[in-house]
Amino acid sequence: MSKNTKVPSTRELMAQLAKESEGLSITDRRDFLRKGILAAGGVAGTVFASKAAASSNLPPMEPTWGKMLGHGVVEYPYGQPSKYESHVVRRTVPWLTAESISSISMSPLHDLKGIITPNGLVFERYHAGVPQIDPEEHRLMIHGLVERPIIFTMEDLMRFPSVSEIKFIECPANGGMEWKGAQMEALQFTHGMLSCCEWTGVPLRVLLDEVGIKPEGKWILAEGADGAHMSRSIPLEKALDDTLVVYAQNGEMLRPEQGYPLRLLNPGWEGNTSIKWLRRLEVGDKPWYHREETSKYTDLMPDGRARKFSFVQETNSVITNPCPENPIKNSGLIEIEGLAWSGRGRIKQVDISFDGGVSWVPANLKGLVLSKSLTRFSLVTKWNGQPWLLQSRAIDETGYVQPTLKQLREARGGNSIYHKNSIHTWKVANNGEVTNVQIS
Amino acid sequence: MSKNTKVPSTRELMAQLAKESEGLSITDRRDFLRKGILAAGGVAGTVFASKAAASSNLPPMEPTWGKMLGHGVVEYPYGQPSKYESHVVRRTVPWLTAESISSISMSPLHDLKGIITPNGLVFERYHAGVPQIDPEEHRLMIHGLVERPIIFTMEDLMRFPSVSEIKFIECPANGGMEWKGAQMEALQFTHGMLSCCEWTGVPLRVLLDEVGIKPEGKWILAEGADGAHMSRSIPLEKALDDTLVVYAQNGEMLRPEQGYPLRLLNPGWEGNTSIKWLRRLEVGDKPWYHREETSKYTDLMPDGRARKFSFVQETNSVITNPCPENPIKNSGLIEIEGLAWSGRGRIKQVDISFDGGVSWVPANLKGLVLSKSLTRFSLVTKWNGQPWLLQSRAIDETGYVQPTLKQLREARGGNSIYHKNSIHTWKVANNGEVTNVQIS
Repeated sequence: MSKNTKVPSTRELMAQLAKESEGLSITDRRDFLRKGILAAGGVAGTVFASKAAASSNLPPMEPTWGKMLGHGVVEYPYGQPSKYESHVVRRTVPWLTAESISSISMSPLHDLKGIITPNGLVFERYHAGVPQIDPEEHRLMIHGLVERPIIFTMEDLMRFPSVSEIKFIECPANGGMEWKGAQMEALQFTHGMLSCCEWTGVPLRVLLDEVGIKPEGKWILAEGADGAHMSRSIPLEKALDDTLVVYAQNGEMLRPEQGYPLRLLNPGWEGNTSIKWLRRLEVGDKPWYHREETSKYTDLMPDGRARKFSFVQETNSVITNPCPENPIKNSGLIEIEGLAWSGRGRIKQVDISFDGGVSWVPANLKGLVLSKSLTRFSLVTKWNGQPWLLQSRAIDETGYVQPTLKQLREARGGNSIYHKNSIHTWKVANNGEVTNVQIS
Repeated sequence: MSKNTKVPSTRELMAQLAKESEGLSITDRRDFLRKGILAAGGVAGTVFASKAAASSNLPPMEPTWGKMLGHGVVEYPYGQPSKYESHVVRRTVPWLTAESISSISMSPLHDLKGIITPNGLVFERYHAGVPQIDPEEHRLMIHGLVERPIIFTMEDLMRFPSVSEIKFIECPANGGMEWKGAQMEALQFTHGMLSCCEWTGVPLRVLLDEVGIKPEGKWILAEGADGAHMSRSIPLEKALDDTLVVYAQNGEMLRPEQGYPLRLLNPGWEGNTSIKWLRRLEVGDKPWYHREETSKYTDLMPDGRARKFSFVQETNSVITNPCPENPIKNSGLIEIEGLAWSGRGRIKQVDISFDGGVSWVPANLKGLVLSKSLTRFSLVTKWNGQPWLLQSRAIDETGYVQPTLKQLREARGGNSIYHKNSIHTWKVANNGEVTNVQIS
């Protein structure tokens, strides 16, 4: 569907849905299975009738795993997923980059639950491959406009009092392939440059207090130890606010592709400012205008000028169920689920539209609602084969409302790659299949 | 040190420490490095002097990883830890059990950060090894005193609205080897039957509403699909309160050793009630008195009678830094860190003693403080070679205070194995080495 095709969904569709879901209460939700699966009756082979179960104290067969011994505790001292989950992996888009050592792989958001991304599935982005750094040899130097330049070992850094915070990281190119109308066929590729972990490290302001910033110090250059020596200029205000120097994620030391043994974390800011394999912080009086903040990671505006240092990942959201990878298989009740996030703080509200943005219904925020973290939202409703143009719209605690694609294009033109946070649309066909469409 | 040896620590020691740490302010903490590491000067080769750093814009050498390409995004679609972290693994105590297929492995608490346990390091306990269950063939039957017995497929269960909650799981035998005075040499073995994840699943009460409990239904038998068919009786009150039927942990599907594809989770209760590889829930009018709730997982009291169905993991805590695996390497400032948890709700307070419980100082609770979750506590203080008898004492929101070993023995006698939640003591020697001691 091209972006200008007239969408078949209507106010009538919404009115019908509203009528159907009128009075949908907790009681209905408790009847989820009966009304949803059994009443629908269309789930061939997946539901046993109640009578069959009643006739026996055991499931219909004793599977092989109930009659044999499994492996013992010494065999996997570091555990791995089930072999039946081998399809749950990070994936890349081969045409995105010339080389896989300077590319990106994306998290399988359609298979993830809750708000924590397990370490094996956190999205990757790097420019010279993943280095294998020996933590004994790794150093972090802080120098430049400081009173007492210093070089830290990992042991030094890990002696400081630590903090642990659940924060998302998102590549500013997330969704960027769609800026000009390309339509990725799956959630993993439209939004998968996004992950969320519990990060542990030292507030950068503590380390900066150690070295003593000179009065003229206003910016910090962060540089990586990998072959790319990726670097970004960070304003001192951020560094003194909530930037962390991080060595652990989800309880264990950083994974190599996440910067082992040390990375920066700028909560809520574009992912590539959170320099991985961090080896150097230089304090200066102005930004450095290095490659990754000039030729890349800038926003080309309609007038041909490039907007630079657009650090914040603005409020965004996406529906993860249903989605292209998770089509609707049964009529009846369905939990619409998704993720919302804001680089400015907490998510305050998420609304859902079934008619491409004509009308909106508030969703529930599920579980923890933390600042600059993923927040999961949910709405239980009914689907009986009607077409949907399904959208989510997040609002954060500052009042920022996620824009439509039209609004975003009006403000930013058609030349951008980064910071595409517009409302996303899934088209649900009457057979339950879900496709990615763009509507103006 | 036997449990009756007179401990050398004294009130004087405490008085001295109080004097030393008097006026310890945020300013002191900001001087953590200078006062702690540089001033101490005893960390051979690990700290570069400031002048050395000032003399160059780069670290003293360019390591090999800065001059070569690493691996690309396609090589580890499911990520793994760094090769330099291969020592961070679950470990078992070989003499604990005759066979590794009916044994336990423990989480490396001394290496963990924050409150999330990464999935590869979650402790394991099972009785017939880890089965490899095909989720397509797995079923959950709910039957017994119900109106509409039913058999669910995984797809059925995953259609229900889900919840995600961060909860600890602890084996009731955690610390049990020490009940009679055996002293394990490391934190991993004294407390490592403990982990904490974000779990996702369906509240059991929702499924019970589907089947309709008959008025005489008061207990539920939960049974696993593994070769042991491990089973436990759960009171209906718990099942209707916060029990979950769980299929995911930390964002991804359960690991095989955690019950893939389905387990029960009884938040705050002894781990073995959270039946793994869950295949059957039977509603009855009384408990079943199966093997694992009679011959095992009961508490043998001083009068020779066995206390059964002691489900709750009472308030507990342990210091994770320093500990035997993390000795103190530097004099000066140190962050005392640890974990506290309660099966009854939130942790309200943790106190730390340096003198074996004679006097106490309140610690800070760090990060998220969630109900029936691990909570991390912290206290920044100074160590200058004085001996410590280091203890932590947790208090939960119900006012329950973690007991001393003496109090626990007075109440429970010396025959127990399970539910040892007494205050734990680390002896810190003047060379910084940490050993496990028991004091009455």
